[in-house]
Parts: sequence; C-alpha cells; structure tokens
Amino acid sequence: MGVSEATTARYGSDLALPAELWNETVDVLLGHRSVRAYSNEPVPEGALEVMIAAAQSASTGSNLQSWSVIAVTDPERKARLAELGGKQGFIARAPLFLVWITDLSRVARAAEARGMPHQALDYLETFLMGSVDAAIAAQNAAVAAESLGLGIVYVGAMRNKPEEVAAELGLPPRTFAVFGMAVGYPDPERPAAVKPRLPLETVLHREQYQADQDNQISAYSATMAAFYAEQQMKVEGDWVEHSARRVAGPESLTGRHRLREALQKLGFELI
Amino acid sequence: MGVSEATTARYGSDLALPAELWNETVDVLLGHRSVRAYSNEPVPEGALEVMIAAAQSASTGSNLQSWSVIAVTDPERKARLAELGGKQGFIARAPLFLVWITDLSRVARAAEARGMPHQALDYLETFLMGSVDAAIAAQNAAVAAESLGLGIVYVGAMRNKPEEVAAELGLPPRTFAVFGMAVGYPDPERPAAVKPRLPLETVLHREQYQADQDNQISAYSATMAAFYAEQQMKVEGDWVEHSARRVAGPESLTGRHRLREALQKLGFELI
Repeated sequence: MGVSEATTARYGSDLALPAELWNETVDVLLGHRSVRAYSNEPVPEGALEVMIAAAQSASTGSNLQSWSVIAVTDPERKARLAELGGKQGFIARAPLFLVWITDLSRVARAAEARGMPHQALDYLETFLMGSVDAAIAAQNAAVAAESLGLGIVYVGAMRNKPEEVAAELGLPPRTFAVFGMAVGYPDPERPAAVKPRLPLETVLHREQYQADQDNQISAYSATMAAFYAEQQMKVEGDWVEHSARRVAGPESLTGRHRLREALQKLGFELI
Repeated sequence: MGVSEATTARYGSDLALPAELWNETVDVLLGHRSVRAYSNEPVPEGALEVMIAAAQSASTGSNLQSWSVIAVTDPERKARLAELGGKQGFIARAPLFLVWITDLSRVARAAEARGMPHQALDYLETFLMGSVDAAIAAQNAAVAAESLGLGIVYVGAMRNKPEEVAAELGLPPRTFAVFGMAVGYPDPERPAAVKPRLPLETVLHREQYQADQDNQISAYSATMAAFYAEQQMKVEGDWVEHSARRVAGPESLTGRHRLREALQKLGFELI
C-alpha cells in the first residue's frame, strides 16, 4: 500500500502525509486489521521467538520487565481458554494463543531471595506499570507478527474470569492474564477489513485537551453504522450507540465488573 | 543490523533466529533504545501525524478508542511538565513531548449527548482497558517514530503528580496522563546503548507459568551490573538490587503511592 491508500482506508479520506515519511514499517503499522479467521498453515519455526525478542526490546518501566507471556498451542488448553474467554471459537482455532501476563511475581521472588522488601508491589501504581509494560511489549510482538504476514487479534475477554484463567495457566500470586492474543496466518478466503477510526484531530490535541474536537464524532459514528452493515457485523445502531451500550453498566462488562475483587484474590492489593 | 548482531546486542548471545524471518520492521523493533539526548534538528513536518495514524491503527478494546494524546511543543509548558515529571531535563529539551491519556471522557460525552447511561466507566476494568489501549497506541507511535530515524523515551514520571499534570493540560474529568513520551532526533554525539534484557526463556513460558525459569536471573543481574558501570549510570549493585530498591516500599514510588487517591480526584471511581 501507499500512504494515500492506507490513510484513506483508515480515515475515509487521504491524510496527504508526506510520501518521504512512508516506509515498510509504517506500511505494516497502518495496515493492521484484527484477524479471527486463520488458514491451516502453521506458525513458522522461530516466529514466536522473533515476536518475543521484539516484545522484550520494547521500553519497560525502570527496566523491571514486569511481564511474562504464555504460549499456548495445546488444543485442549486452547479450547478451555476459548470457553473462559467469552466462548470465542477463534481462540481454539488459532494455531498459537499468547496470554500476556502482568507479572510482579518475578521481582518479588528475586527480592525475597536476597531478603529485600517489596512492599511497593502492593500499590495500584505498580499493577498499572506492569500492565502498561505488558501492553507495550505485546504490541511490539503484534507488529513483528504482522511484518511476517501473520495476523493477530487481542482478546480482552481473558479478563472475564481471571481466577479460572490463572488456574488454567498455573499462575503464581501477583500475576494476572491482562489480555490474550490469537496468532495465525490469515485465511485468504475470509480476509479482515481495515476498521475506520475516529478522525485524527479527535484524538490528537495540541498543548491542552480540547473537548470541542468531538465535533466530528457524528460523521464517524455514521461511517461505522455503514461499516457494521457492510461487514455483516450484527451491530445495531452506530458507533455512539455501540460504544454507549458497551459502557452502560456493570452488566455490560461480561464479568469484569468484579475485576478488583479478582485481582485481590490473585495477590494484588491495589492500595 | 542483521539478526545475529541485533539479538547479540539484546541478549549477549546470538539467538540464531531464522534469517528469513528478518525484515526492516523487525530490525526497527529489535534496535530500540531509549533516547534522552537530542540533536537540534526539528521533528519533520508530518511526522507527528504519521505517528498518530500508526497509533490509531493499533487494536483498541471494542473499538472504543479510549485514549487521547496531547502534543506539547511550547517551551514553557515542556519546562513545567519536566518539573512535574521528576525534574527530568530531557523533557524540556525534546522538540516534541507527547502526553498519552487514558480517556474515558469522550465516550462519556457521546453517551450523555444521547441521554444514554455510562456507569461501567466507573469500574477498574474500564480504567485498565483505556490505559492498556493508550499503551498499545503509544507503542505503535514509538515504532513509527523510530522507523523514521527519530528517538523516543517513555516517561512514567508523568504519574508522579497526576492532578498537577491534569491542570497543566486542561484535562476534563475521566482523563488521566498515564505516561509521557519525549521525541526527537538522537544526538549523534551522545548515542544511546541497546539495553540488555532478561533471557528470552525467562519471560516466555510454554502452556503454563514456570517459575523455575528464573534460574538465569543471576547471570543477567551480573550483566546489568557491568552495563551500569560501562554506561556510567550511577546505579549501585546489580539488576536484582536495582529492581528490589525500586519496589521496596511506598517511598520508592516517587509520589505514585497515592495514585488511587489521585485517580479518584480525576473522576475515576475504580469500583
């Protein structure tokens, strides 16, 4: 793709970005789509290691590296995780399923081995840092995978039943499956579409936050209504309606309204 | 760089990854280093937009796009943010400083405009989702920047004084500056080094979590002691000691031990 095609697919109009700022990497980044339908081709030997080397090369707060990742390929375990993850069948069908872990247990073990305290691990800040670090790492892995022609989709539904997921993966205290990621070659017969996003000016603010940048939301919302229909996504209404339903109340959180309680059971005090 | 050089720089030994899995994007990802010293060259016209288009192209939970970013170039504002962000001078010296925002306010405004409820925004889950989405987006922007030859460094210290940062940036309720990112061309006279990471097998687990993968931590910890000395980083001890000090107790969190209280003042109930 070129810069005009890529930004038109994403925004519905050409952003007219300078052609000299276009390169292979930007092309991979702008071309992302979530892939839930996979071919029968296996993930090639070494691709997982390339993804994790990319993940580890990402920034990490104070170099604490407060994350882990669990690579699941066992069909029965994938099927159980699919069941726990909102019964989403693509989790079982993906050749590789990664579970990204907020991991404060490694540094706890290391500190304990030297008899050093680690009380700060009990704070909300440290949980947030580990979760942000896991996300930054995971996104590097996603980009590496996509550069190799693989497709990925994030799975937030790993948070629907945190204790059950932890038991399935043998997680020690102070670890939490923050999200999953299914990986596989895209099925060429069921290609995923590039999803339109909010206008760039809606999310990019200059110097200070500008709530009046919301003025293009209705046009975007209508664009998405057309996209849902075109992609046969069975979503009623437009983007605003879809989004508002998603955040209407605890019942719209598919179990995640009890995340705090679950995290405390998993050893995060969240002071 | 090639695959051998890149993995040797990161891990101290060649991972022997298949050469056919190497490409320009993987090269950018593996070559990351945090850049805190910038040349006088400005960020080129359009680069910010390329970064944000990459950020918006990343995955986002339920397409809610619960993040925003504020681009700061005003020297006085950068200086004030540097002061709030742990007095780190490079924040003021970077030509561009991005503040990444967990933004639940946009969907709140959209729902309110239609008289729809949004009670789920008050849950810890939704705050976590927005923060993870901001991180995934930011990492795509970082990769885009690095592919263009720019350097970046994340700034977790934006969380040291959340209310003051929010006031500086005019943030509405339900928004939070989750981290910053300084951007600029690296100063060729003060090049940053690739920082060694834990062995790949320490963070990558197969099927279930394996705490016995910690067995290579002491070797890594010693590698880092040598790295601190070589880079004149003024860090005492090795990686375990450095990490344990970082999480010793509330006093090691540079103000962030009160993150929960600060977030509640900023409109996040975190139920």
